Amino acid sequence: MVGAGQLARMTHQAALDLGVELVVLARSEEEPAVAAGARALVGPPTSEAALGRLAAEVDVVTFDHEGTPAELAIGLAQAGYTVRPDGEALRLAQDKLAARRAFAAAGFPVPAFAPLGPDPAGEVARFAADHGWPVVIKSRRGGYDGRGVSIVPGPEGLTRALARMEGSELLVEAHVDLAQELAVVGARTPSGAWAAYPAVGTLQTDGICRELVMPAPVGTAVASRAEELASAIAGDIGAVGIIAVELFVTRGGDLVVNEIAVRPHNSGHATIEAATTSQFHNHLRAVLDLPLGDTSLRAPAAAMVNVLGDRLGTDPRLRLRDALAVPEASVHLYGKEPAPGRKLGHVTALGASPEEALAVARRCARFLDCEAG
Amino acid sequence: MVGAGQLARMTHQAALDLGVELVVLARSEEEPAVAAGARALVGPPTSEAALGRLAAEVDVVTFDHEGTPAELAIGLAQAGYTVRPDGEALRLAQDKLAARRAFAAAGFPVPAFAPLGPDPAGEVARFAADHGWPVVIKSRRGGYDGRGVSIVPGPEGLTRALARMEGSELLVEAHVDLAQELAVVGARTPSGAWAAYPAVGTLQTDGICRELVMPAPVGTAVASRAEELASAIAGDIGAVGIIAVELFVTRGGDLVVNEIAVRPHNSGHATIEAATTSQFHNHLRAVLDLPLGDTSLRAPAAAMVNVLGDRLGTDPRLRLRDALAVPEASVHLYGKEPAPGRKLGHVTALGASPEEALAVARRCARFLDCEAG
Repeated sequence: MVGAGQLARMTHQAALDLGVELVVLARSEEEPAVAAGARALVGPPTSEAALGRLAAEVDVVTFDHEGTPAELAIGLAQAGYTVRPDGEALRLAQDKLAARRAFAAAGFPVPAFAPLGPDPAGEVARFAADHGWPVVIKSRRGGYDGRGVSIVPGPEGLTRALARMEGSELLVEAHVDLAQELAVVGARTPSGAWAAYPAVGTLQTDGICRELVMPAPVGTAVASRAEELASAIAGDIGAVGIIAVELFVTRGGDLVVNEIAVRPHNSGHATIEAATTSQFHNHLRAVLDLPLGDTSLRAPAAAMVNVLGDRLGTDPRLRLRDALAVPEASVHLYGKEPAPGRKLGHVTALGASPEEALAVARRCARFLDCEAG
Repeated sequence: MVGAGQLARMTHQAALDLGVELVVLARSEEEPAVAAGARALVGPPTSEAALGRLAAEVDVVTFDHEGTPAELAIGLAQAGYTVRPDGEALRLAQDKLAARRAFAAAGFPVPAFAPLGPDPAGEVARFAADHGWPVVIKSRRGGYDGRGVSIVPGPEGLTRALARMEGSELLVEAHVDLAQELAVVGARTPSGAWAAYPAVGTLQTDGICRELVMPAPVGTAVASRAEELASAIAGDIGAVGIIAVELFVTRGGDLVVNEIAVRPHNSGHATIEAATTSQFHNHLRAVLDLPLGDTSLRAPAAAMVNVLGDRLGTDPRLRLRDALAVPEASVHLYGKEPAPGRKLGHVTALGASPEEALAVARRCARFLDCEAG
């Protein structure tokens, strides 16, 4: 696995169950998966030599982040290594413009969009004349957790927004008047077997996925359409492993594809407790071309709350005693160096309803990341 | 943790969730917990020096087996280290005669028993005259998984049984005409907080715990009494961490204590999937004096089947594809060198009834350990 963050750490935990050895390509020995005991090679995920060393040691190369250029993944495959997902799928998870174009061409619903070129202010103004304000300006690459995205309410904010994002390739999109954000996490094998978890509802704060509930608070018809859309996208791009498809539900009840990730995803963390087979187990099963495990829920509902670093950089382990006093919650800490706003862990709870599960997960998570501690 | 077998391996997986570092004292670098990435010191669990090295590195010393003499555990505590469970509890898990005496003195139901001395044949004959045949002859120490236990139907088999067990300190017990074997797994903190999982029914084959179902196939009154008995024993001996109390249900519906273990136990493996908090998480919480997690079940029923090595020493990973084609089952392999009859893993399934769960777990486990594989 290229990358050694919390996704690789939790994949290592799952790999132990299957008797599979996870080898990670880590940026440093301090990363969460290395601390968890996964065998590690140290090197940058952007280095052809480092990737080659990893590939030579394993049966299948897979990823815990989007930091490897698609070209290098394609190069590994051309050199005869098995790379899952492949470079083309990776590119769509890395390059928002390429994804918009591919999904639009395949007939999947996406917001109106346009690349920005040499005259971004003029091009955005013309785009807004066609599609109205507000607009969303995004970095084509590299943005996640709210970085690289700017909602511009009207022409007066445009110059400042463009100045802030200068230096990146950009695109502009119509702003979706959304009622709910959803994510569908599913696993696809090389031969096309597909198993998806029920759609989850995500709640973003400052662009960071902060909380989620499953099943999503939408009607079953919307949830079914979201799951069908995710399955169609996974098949269309030939994804292998876990794919997370993030979707907007508009106020009119329509679905619009936001973006995809082709790796285990924050939206799937609750599957560790909530589903028969976790996303980490199913990622391994999928990339190893083994039969997929059951994705059905073990409880009527589940919720997950991320644990973020506070402004003081407090170690959440110092608050473990209080957090564990919420007995129904399941705590996952990643062993990361605390930093303000950094994802340091998550808490999951199951319940009779999403509201009940969310209340339990919040009560526990609050102890781990609240500054009042 | 003293020991680095599968119990330490699964404890390591749980420790990662809590951001707790597990350090193991391993007999070799090949043991399951070391392969899983737990930091390891290598040395025998019977060496005072090795135990001292471990104790100096950790906040709390705990155990994944009964291989450390109680005296050495007591010595560590006297040297100022925190040892949980303590040496006295450990002794009762190691020494069947000491346990029988302690439990009988405390008023817990145990089979009639007597130590055997210089004239074992005569002493057994006198014991049988009081209590009837068959009798059970046991090694006082070191027997587990059916080793060190001999059921003697009548006087004609006695000489052979005694010859086979020569060299061990022995005791003789009345044979319990049992309807069902139960185990209650619970966690106890240093301050006496207690959380028990529902009693499980165990099915032994050749003395090895082979399968279990939860809840146990006994009435709720018997299950409640079993859980109360386990709680009383845990409190009486001052156990800290997980304690497993194995019980016989007689054909008359009475409960008799068989033996105890003061560590995570095979009878608790299904709690990984079946309970909100697994026995491994609760063992860590208890020995670290943190609040215990919820032990209630997430499903109406669960079953677990051990995966044993076949006569050919086949690696069960070679049969993973077939086993994973049972999508509702959860596979746990321990990364152990295959050997005939060795516990190499286990399979858990949840279900609407114990029978349903057991059928799923068996279907999956059969692929992993059947010689026709």
